[in-house]
Amino acid sequence: MTASPALPWFVEIAPERRCSIGLEIRRTLHRERSPYQEIVVHETSDHGRLLALDGCIMLTESDEFVYHEMLAHPALLSHPAPARVVIVGGGDGGTLREVARHAAVGAIVQVEIDERVTAVARAHFPALVTALDDPRARLVFADAVAWMRAAPAASADVVLVDSTDPVGPAAGLFAVEFLADCRRVLAPGGILALQSESPILYPELVRLVHARLVEAGFAGRALLPFSQPTYPSGTWSVSLATVEGTPVRRRHDPSLSTRYYTPEHHDALLTGLPRCYRALVTGPEA
Amino acid sequence: MTASPALPWFVEIAPERRCSIGLEIRRTLHRERSPYQEIVVHETSDHGRLLALDGCIMLTESDEFVYHEMLAHPALLSHPAPARVVIVGGGDGGTLREVARHAAVGAIVQVEIDERVTAVARAHFPALVTALDDPRARLVFADAVAWMRAAPAASADVVLVDSTDPVGPAAGLFAVEFLADCRRVLAPGGILALQSESPILYPELVRLVHARLVEAGFAGRALLPFSQPTYPSGTWSVSLATVEGTPVRRRHDPSLSTRYYTPEHHDALLTGLPRCYRALVTGPEA
Repeated sequence: MTASPALPWFVEIAPERRCSIGLEIRRTLHRERSPYQEIVVHETSDHGRLLALDGCIMLTESDEFVYHEMLAHPALLSHPAPARVVIVGGGDGGTLREVARHAAVGAIVQVEIDERVTAVARAHFPALVTALDDPRARLVFADAVAWMRAAPAASADVVLVDSTDPVGPAAGLFAVEFLADCRRVLAPGGILALQSESPILYPELVRLVHARLVEAGFAGRALLPFSQPTYPSGTWSVSLATVEGTPVRRRHDPSLSTRYYTPEHHDALLTGLPRCYRALVTGPEA
Repeated sequence: MTASPALPWFVEIAPERRCSIGLEIRRTLHRERSPYQEIVVHETSDHGRLLALDGCIMLTESDEFVYHEMLAHPALLSHPAPARVVIVGGGDGGTLREVARHAAVGAIVQVEIDERVTAVARAHFPALVTALDDPRARLVFADAVAWMRAAPAASADVVLVDSTDPVGPAAGLFAVEFLADCRRVLAPGGILALQSESPILYPELVRLVHARLVEAGFAGRALLPFSQPTYPSGTWSVSLATVEGTPVRRRHDPSLSTRYYTPEHHDALLTGLPRCYRALVTGPEA
């Protein structure tokens, strides 16, 4: 045991696995209760600013680039012409920032339930909100489950689900009905990417998400694990699901500036997952 | 903030980065101070037994397979005929267990400074110590720095450095003098693998290790990051260094039973690292 530090710590416990992650806090910059959740911004000692929703770390400035790159770029570069993109959630602006880097994208709709998250991001996370006013982007503050239910069939090329954990406001975003609506809204050749939790802390949850993607009518799937040091376990994942065929990288954009994503890493994830992760997509091996 | 739990927690703080990892503890099974370090065994609530040395998590039963597979198998399968293996540290037996799975290995010397670690592992970690009595294995309890200094040149095919962090008893195992001795002890075609800390929490340390491997006379290097949920940041790494050429996978052993390692994942790491990890091996990119 280490002696208790002088500054306060933000500690998030993963209740099902009885483990925790902590970050030392210099000061609290913002705290409010929106109609949907508690929104808190802390200044950490060594990880930049921290955004927490209902006590769970959403992002820190030090490592948000990994999550946002991995949610956006593999999906967009797996599509030959991703003109129409829908972002579900993503109120902090980080996913939109990465999507807006793609010249192939012509229209982006972001459907976030809690406009206070976006307002807090505008006030406290200048590096995240750089594309919120991109002329291609339209920000809709609404329940994405109802929005997707009402959206026209075949009206999007890529759907990115940037949700919180499958409890609270985001529970419906992991339901098969919502995933089937995403499938319906995607045009031929379409691709869905969703944040799919930790494959090493919650393997059964990842397995369930993939089973629901099959049930929702997607043809192919892939699991993309990545390092996320400020999420529980330090490994998180995005799952890809395709309307037709198997997820493959179809394009390379040499002008795309990234810190974690590379086309070679994208290919490596599709061909060479560790055994315990591959088993979550394909089922246990003989 | 989450309400404090009813059971005690083991919390390890990464002091330079002001972050922490915690595991809920049901009971403490063992605690002693050896001549070298404090050795503690806890029963965690959901990660099996935990071995801590000087307050740092060495392993938990739930995820030790990742570390031990990734330290042993990439190195051994990069060598065409790894007959003579030296393990530095590794007193808990986990690395030896993985090395002993290889029929190509004829002789294993393990040089651990603290025989109490091995005694505690025999008492509390039955799944780790299965190969300690393998007839090919010889257990030497001695300072590996002095041992390697005295070892004959070209007397080993593979050296695996399974050390603690580069403070305390293991500091000398990260020094260029020790790495140069490993280089001298390796025969032509030889390969060194060493645990090289977290590439996302301590990138400059990983960069320094690779610079020292160059300085020690190794020809080629590779960085192999992997998920380790009970180490700080959740991503850890092994570094490979070769006497000649670049690390490549030379063999596949279909009889090798693994939970994390696969030959496809091995190849994927060599060809497709995330950009921020690749930069630690090759230097910043233009």
